[in-house]
Amino acid sequence: MSPVPPLDPCDFTVFGGTGDLALRKLLPALYHRDRDGQLADGTRIIGVSRAEVDDDGYRDEVRAALTTFIEAGDWDEAVVDRLLGRLHHVTLDALDPADWPRLHDRLKDGAASDAVVRVFYLAVAPALFGEICQHLEETGLVDERARVVLEKPIGSDLASARAINDAVGRVFDEQQIFRIDHYLGKESVQNLLVTRFANIFLEPLMNSHWVDHVQITVAESLGVGERGGYYDHAGALRDMVQNHLLQLLCLVAMEPPAYVDRETVRDEKLKVLQALRPMTPACVDRDTVAGQYDAGLVDGAAVPSYAEDLGHPGSTTETFVALKTEVQNWRWAGVPFYLRTGKRMDRRVSEIIVVFKDPPHAMFPHSEGSTEANRLHIRVQPDEGMQLHFTAKEPGPGGIRLRPVSLDLNYADTFGRPSPDAYERLLMDVVRGNPTLFMRRDEVEAAWAWVEPILARWTQTPHRPRRYPAGTAGPTAAATLLERDGRSWQENDT
Amino acid sequence: MSPVPPLDPCDFTVFGGTGDLALRKLLPALYHRDRDGQLADGTRIIGVSRAEVDDDGYRDEVRAALTTFIEAGDWDEAVVDRLLGRLHHVTLDALDPADWPRLHDRLKDGAASDAVVRVFYLAVAPALFGEICQHLEETGLVDERARVVLEKPIGSDLASARAINDAVGRVFDEQQIFRIDHYLGKESVQNLLVTRFANIFLEPLMNSHWVDHVQITVAESLGVGERGGYYDHAGALRDMVQNHLLQLLCLVAMEPPAYVDRETVRDEKLKVLQALRPMTPACVDRDTVAGQYDAGLVDGAAVPSYAEDLGHPGSTTETFVALKTEVQNWRWAGVPFYLRTGKRMDRRVSEIIVVFKDPPHAMFPHSEGSTEANRLHIRVQPDEGMQLHFTAKEPGPGGIRLRPVSLDLNYADTFGRPSPDAYERLLMDVVRGNPTLFMRRDEVEAAWAWVEPILARWTQTPHRPRRYPAGTAGPTAAATLLERDGRSWQENDT
Repeated sequence: MSPVPPLDPCDFTVFGGTGDLALRKLLPALYHRDRDGQLADGTRIIGVSRAEVDDDGYRDEVRAALTTFIEAGDWDEAVVDRLLGRLHHVTLDALDPADWPRLHDRLKDGAASDAVVRVFYLAVAPALFGEICQHLEETGLVDERARVVLEKPIGSDLASARAINDAVGRVFDEQQIFRIDHYLGKESVQNLLVTRFANIFLEPLMNSHWVDHVQITVAESLGVGERGGYYDHAGALRDMVQNHLLQLLCLVAMEPPAYVDRETVRDEKLKVLQALRPMTPACVDRDTVAGQYDAGLVDGAAVPSYAEDLGHPGSTTETFVALKTEVQNWRWAGVPFYLRTGKRMDRRVSEIIVVFKDPPHAMFPHSEGSTEANRLHIRVQPDEGMQLHFTAKEPGPGGIRLRPVSLDLNYADTFGRPSPDAYERLLMDVVRGNPTLFMRRDEVEAAWAWVEPILARWTQTPHRPRRYPAGTAGPTAAATLLERDGRSWQENDT
Repeated sequence: MSPVPPLDPCDFTVFGGTGDLALRKLLPALYHRDRDGQLADGTRIIGVSRAEVDDDGYRDEVRAALTTFIEAGDWDEAVVDRLLGRLHHVTLDALDPADWPRLHDRLKDGAASDAVVRVFYLAVAPALFGEICQHLEETGLVDERARVVLEKPIGSDLASARAINDAVGRVFDEQQIFRIDHYLGKESVQNLLVTRFANIFLEPLMNSHWVDHVQITVAESLGVGERGGYYDHAGALRDMVQNHLLQLLCLVAMEPPAYVDRETVRDEKLKVLQALRPMTPACVDRDTVAGQYDAGLVDGAAVPSYAEDLGHPGSTTETFVALKTEVQNWRWAGVPFYLRTGKRMDRRVSEIIVVFKDPPHAMFPHSEGSTEANRLHIRVQPDEGMQLHFTAKEPGPGGIRLRPVSLDLNYADTFGRPSPDAYERLLMDVVRGNPTLFMRRDEVEAAWAWVEPILARWTQTPHRPRRYPAGTAGPTAAATLLERDGRSWQENDT
């Protein structure tokens, strides 16, 4: 690990400071960064919520959370004390103007300097984004060095996304707005850029000459749990495809930018989104599959159906999406990109698999054994890593016997420790002011523009998601989507 | 491992049956094949030598050799007994016509059938090849199914190679002649063909667009030992470059044949040899380095100089060669192939390293860490395997830190057991009548035709091999050969 110099002092304000994301992800991430010496002296963390809790009460709450979410081997009491010493809590109802001076006073009082970087992390419902930003400005907390972090979802369709972006954009310049997609902070995702663009061996192969198709899978074994209320209004397409899966697709498919840096990467991702084949109604009917989980078995335990999780029957919300698309440009024309995501599936895995074409000619006519297509397999989670699957000769003095083998790179094995959590990098990038791994407004809106016709078609037709038993790979129609093209999902490709 | 059906019954006659190669390599190889059930009932092994020893005496000698050269875990007393039961010895002076009827009688008496495959393995001095073949014919032992195996060296220059090939060719058709180069039986060498031609990912990269240069190293840590008498007349160029190194070069550089089978592979290898840049005198002076080892340290032990090993000073025989060449065809023009081989070097390794070009553009301007050229590393021995070296992002929340990593395929790990010895495969290919992995006459002669101008130039000029201390990487001029091109030998590339 490289030594990390501390960043500029910062006031890190988290709206939703007592919420799940803050306690489970953001504060543990800040702990790890503090431990590595990356938080400058004077850096403060201000939790904002409606909870009637003072600084000490908040510190107790955070300490309890850290106990749960920091691994024992990583625990350093001195660092915990230092981090808790940075903590404050401001009780504030974002909709009540009378509360806002409290935040103003806290941030102005005792700030390390006037030049402190103010980060406002909005871990709250998107409906509040605009109003919070307006109050931040009215309270005089927004200057050139202020930054706002928006958690997904940015809207529920193109119009609502634009409304949010407009409202936030009235207060913050685009370069101050950090729309976070934690998938982009995963080491394996960043390494995809390095593997493609800091090496010569891969890029010549990444085009329609050599690639048969690309598969992107984000499978969860959990159900909607407590999030049913939100989820039932969103569904898998809005919740996962519009952001995570399309972002992964962009990173696989994008052209090399002039440099891997800030706007250049976002420019190239945008071009991919704009090149996606438009989802006409016929396209939607043919190339998309929606599913909803029924009761079933996950890891041997009986789990309820989506309706049971939700508490009522009749929902047509999809908990699974599979779709086929194409990047209509010179490099990728004719290469299908198959995407799928779902809850209550048979495994938890996020992965990108680039499946190469077969060799143009079978040159081992008398060979035995089996061959499989060459594949580059990028595992985003769990067990971040990369594998190149190819065919080798099985050792032996007989004829030529072919056998699939793989060249493996496991992050934890290679680098001697597990990768840092995605939030660690992303939070520091916010403080650093580096937006490379965040979604720009035009990207978010281009993604909505592409997704919207799917939503529209699904509501126009008597749309019923296909049922699939929990603990499976989704509805059989998702398999058919590939089988009719003579392909299949790569399952357990290790 | 695939099950191996037994081959046709065979009379396997080894000239030089009590010699080092027979006892150390051929009989242990036949033991392993017998153990796997690949030797048919009725298969016999006839050792031929001038030694006055009967069948039982020979069996004792072979049993002692097997005890030394079969690993204890592989020992199966029943198989040893079966193999010894196949053994016979014929005392014969190849130059004495009166002796030959003894071999005739042995082979005719008790052969499994008239249609038995007769293999004659000539593990003797090449000067005897022609005479032995002539006697075999005169004795009536050569039929359509007979095969002759020739150990290197096939001659010491083009004229003597032609003379041997002519003499053997008067008795055997070319398809009955198996010129063995045990390097071609190595699993990793065969797998090079499979990796190139049963996969799509590598072949698009194997040309002057993407490859910067190729390195082939065959380094030995041993000295000439007892072989000084032979070796001092040969030298490293004749002993290693003309056969092993050029054969490896052919397999890396050859065009895809229509099929990987028999003549097609040899046709393509021949084309590579014919496309090697001719070694003009200026080329020889500029692009070749000859060396001879001095006393030095190998693995911490003092070892003598070549002159001491030889027993007299004054020899100008090279024990080390490094050279640069080029395959002058559409695919490879402009790509240097650097070859080196030597005795008493700092390690024992045979390897092919394809070094790819740097990416056309450095796209991570603010990155730290280091990058190295992408490399495909094929280890022929020891530890057969393959590695793809590339650059990855070191995990961490700081800036982008690049680090060389490798994707690894280790044969023993992947396939669960060490690879069989090269001779096992090659001997069975002889019985099978498959010449793919053997050198055809035109290949051998093309290799001599290319090597000969080097030998000629070295004798025309006041040629003195450069001294290098035993236990080093050879003379410094070998390093300079690459450094003047802005390159360097890949040492310990693991």
